[in-house]
Amino acid sequence: MWDEIWINVNLATMVPGGERYGAIKDGAIAVEHGDIAWVGTAAELPGEPGKLAWSVADGDGRWVTPGLVDCHTHIVHGGSRGAEFELRLEGASYEEIARAGGGILSTVKATRAATEQELFDTAKQRVRRLLAEGVTVMEVKSGYGLDLDTEVKMLRVARRLALELPVTVRTTFLGAHALPPEYTDRADDYIDLVCGEVLPAVAEEGLADAVDAFCEGIGFTPEQTARVFETARGLGLPVKLHADQLSDLDGAALAASFDALSADHLEYTSDAGIAAMASAGTVAVLLPGAFYFLREKTLPPVDGFRRHGVPIALATDNNPGSSPAVSLLLMLNMACTLFRMTPEEALAGITRNGAAALGLSKKYGTLEVGKTGDFVFWDVESPADLSYRIGDNPCKEVVRHGKTVWSD
Amino acid sequence: MWDEIWINVNLATMVPGGERYGAIKDGAIAVEHGDIAWVGTAAELPGEPGKLAWSVADGDGRWVTPGLVDCHTHIVHGGSRGAEFELRLEGASYEEIARAGGGILSTVKATRAATEQELFDTAKQRVRRLLAEGVTVMEVKSGYGLDLDTEVKMLRVARRLALELPVTVRTTFLGAHALPPEYTDRADDYIDLVCGEVLPAVAEEGLADAVDAFCEGIGFTPEQTARVFETARGLGLPVKLHADQLSDLDGAALAASFDALSADHLEYTSDAGIAAMASAGTVAVLLPGAFYFLREKTLPPVDGFRRHGVPIALATDNNPGSSPAVSLLLMLNMACTLFRMTPEEALAGITRNGAAALGLSKKYGTLEVGKTGDFVFWDVESPADLSYRIGDNPCKEVVRHGKTVWSD
Ligand SMILES: [Zn+2]
Ligand SMILES: [Zn+2]
Repeated sequence: MWDEIWINVNLATMVPGGERYGAIKDGAIAVEHGDIAWVGTAAELPGEPGKLAWSVADGDGRWVTPGLVDCHTHIVHGGSRGAEFELRLEGASYEEIARAGGGILSTVKATRAATEQELFDTAKQRVRRLLAEGVTVMEVKSGYGLDLDTEVKMLRVARRLALELPVTVRTTFLGAHALPPEYTDRADDYIDLVCGEVLPAVAEEGLADAVDAFCEGIGFTPEQTARVFETARGLGLPVKLHADQLSDLDGAALAASFDALSADHLEYTSDAGIAAMASAGTVAVLLPGAFYFLREKTLPPVDGFRRHGVPIALATDNNPGSSPAVSLLLMLNMACTLFRMTPEEALAGITRNGAAALGLSKKYGTLEVGKTGDFVFWDVESPADLSYRIGDNPCKEVVRHGKTVWSD
Repeated sequence: MWDEIWINVNLATMVPGGERYGAIKDGAIAVEHGDIAWVGTAAELPGEPGKLAWSVADGDGRWVTPGLVDCHTHIVHGGSRGAEFELRLEGASYEEIARAGGGILSTVKATRAATEQELFDTAKQRVRRLLAEGVTVMEVKSGYGLDLDTEVKMLRVARRLALELPVTVRTTFLGAHALPPEYTDRADDYIDLVCGEVLPAVAEEGLADAVDAFCEGIGFTPEQTARVFETARGLGLPVKLHADQLSDLDGAALAASFDALSADHLEYTSDAGIAAMASAGTVAVLLPGAFYFLREKTLPPVDGFRRHGVPIALATDNNPGSSPAVSLLLMLNMACTLFRMTPEEALAGITRNGAAALGLSKKYGTLEVGKTGDFVFWDVESPADLSYRIGDNPCKEVVRHGKTVWSD
């Protein structure tokens, strides 16, 4: 006997290769011990639903997708950059904004100053917005501490989010996010600190599931990034990379050469970089919220990823400086509207490919037997509506590990 | 004695000329018979709150704005265009989309086929999303019927929304929205029908508070628009205009010459058009959702409106073809991000200037004594956060006519 079965549902299984969205119309889905025990059409059920499971639920004909995955966020951070946003639009000069405390270092300062509880409380509010849209798995990066204590504090908050909210969290150490003020003009010394002290200590405490860096003219060089990645490799941690966002530094190829789980942003990635990602199985994580908010003009090479068969994921990139977004559904619309992805590609980006970007393909991202029982019921005519509507939230119910954790 | 007073609030009164947002920190606001009876700083209160009002509420230090105004929507409509959106992104040809039933005429067909109850039910869902963000006043247009019965049906649904939901609705007759299929190549004959039969009947039934038209190469000519406006004038109805969205047909000036309440879209409006609007007191309604969704490149002349002192309003333009948006807060962010408006200008656009675009300045749009007691409590550090955050909804409570109608 299964624990529960939902009948009268349309399943967007997101299993590739067949119908759009891997759709199973007039379907049923069952869970046992928190995992998916059966998926198929109602007609294929091996008996009466009431005799197959302890509990039978009627899905009311709704569409069901896998639990959503937000695979790139900086959702734990101190302070707000609303005042900076306002000053900038009011025409304040660079100096005025700096004096009022703008830029990423203002977030570093606020994050260092915040208590663990304060960071938790503010992040929790943002995470809740995501959960109400059907997110059941998310990634959280450090990177606003840039010193051992604060990086650890951020990652502890990320772990605690998973303890207190119904969400699976993968943590990513992003010590090489920016140069802390105490290391001005000494980037190599800071990388020494990251590789020699901070990352090993973080790994020792089991606080990081992956390691990331910001490889960019205004970030770290490919050589510095490689040093961080070598350290990660030595510690047995997979890597990801903020790559080719503002210029082409061959970041995608660098990431691929370390078998990165993902390379993220990628607006300026070359065809060679895409080919390297394809060979390495590195996922392309596109971040339309940051593209939109920064008013970028160079589109990521979506056609190149398609041609080379590189899986495309999407994420909010929630962060106070370049993407203060707490809606993953809105990213679907932005990916379609701005990047010309199809609604099916977009939805794969926050399910199947989002899970792959976190190394979680085995248990998440599609509705298949043996995967975790995370799925979402939607009040839509078709899964395309999730991409088409702007600012809507048609989420009716979220099931996680086989149990309802949210309903409208 | 006032009916109720809220103490411990920060008021964004949106009264122009003083502090940013007309802000009153550590303020209080009182209502009597549904209207605002007192606004000011707590220190200025003429006595103990408990002796001034029957009921005292603690605002918890929250920011309070006027009730939001969405002054341009086509929120009553049949069908969805999600399938068309998907086909287009999948690269379907024009013919394939037409065969699958695309374009505005597919919405006309679906709206004609829908019962009044169906139109009401689907619109109600969308309106509820707006209300949860603090909208207390909205405009609803007809224009997907293009025949007497369906135009009447749409406007009746709009009136009914105001009867069954806590929202003030202004209706706009938009018979000259598109050419119905039965009038192909006979636009002047259709305008005869609109002016000779449909509009007079709608006015007779008291179903329209204003009259609008779509003046554009793909819509109606300035001459046809002027005929509609003359009919409206004869019936004592104010006008508005979909003007200069895709090309400069001098629509803004035409609207101004009829003392229009507003001219809307305005991406291509010339300086002469802006000057005419300024003289006539016509509000510029900008629609960043449609600009975004259609990937327009020509920005509306925001600086020109500023220079000429033309008030700028913002709205969702909720419609299935070019702005399937149900978030007015997202329009704030888009106005700032895409149009480079300031957060204060954006907020004025959905309060004070939104009310002006509907001819409701006397009773709505600011927190001032004598105006309707519509206001919203927000969980934000500053009103700028309403523009800064993307996809968030920090609305905690909505008061309408002095009574709480929604709370988080
Ligand atoms: Zn990032
Ligand atoms: Zn419109």
